[in-house]
Amino acid sequence: MAVARLTDSEREELLRRHPEWSLARDGDAIERTFAFADFNEAFGFMTRVALLADKADHHPEWSNVYNRVQIALTTHDAGGLSQRDADMAKAIDAL
Amino acid sequence: MAVARLTDSEREELLRRHPEWSLARDGDAIERTFAFADFNEAFGFMTRVALLADKADHHPEWSNVYNRVQIALTTHDAGGLSQRDADMAKAIDAL
Repeated sequence: MAVARLTDSEREELLRRHPEWSLARDGDAIERTFAFADFNEAFGFMTRVALLADKADHHPEWSNVYNRVQIALTTHDAGGLSQRDADMAKAIDAL
Repeated sequence: MAVARLTDSEREELLRRHPEWSLARDGDAIERTFAFADFNEAFGFMTRVALLADKADHHPEWSNVYNRVQIALTTHDAGGLSQRDADMAKAIDAL
């Protein structure tokens, strides 16, 4: 089922509410990089995000190098950003 | 402490023993991509690799998109591939 893509004003609202995230992929994704004390903490965080993501059935595109985790959120079914990405950014920021 | 870099013949031996891995970054890393049924399985695998990596104090550079996990192994202290990467590839292949 297709998911509604955020309008320009909804996208601006998302970035206003979550200023640590920035637009990527020509505005079709948002990204944030997280830094931790070490790999153990970084992977602990990833595990918490994975549980959120699997519950929401909305999965990040992400990478990890030692203490750093980079997360990109986008909605393939919307061809860009959707409310799901806004919800996931909010949930991740709340961890 | 500096870690010995693999010689050319040791590197060839590594690839011979682990044919699913390929050289990357001008021969300074090895990479392998794993595909699973879904995100849940992919992240379960990542968790097992994370436990191996933290125990060995040798961490992968990796990314995940839904059911796919791409892993790169390299040894910064060696400026390229070392025995640690060969040991980690072997441990990952054994999962």
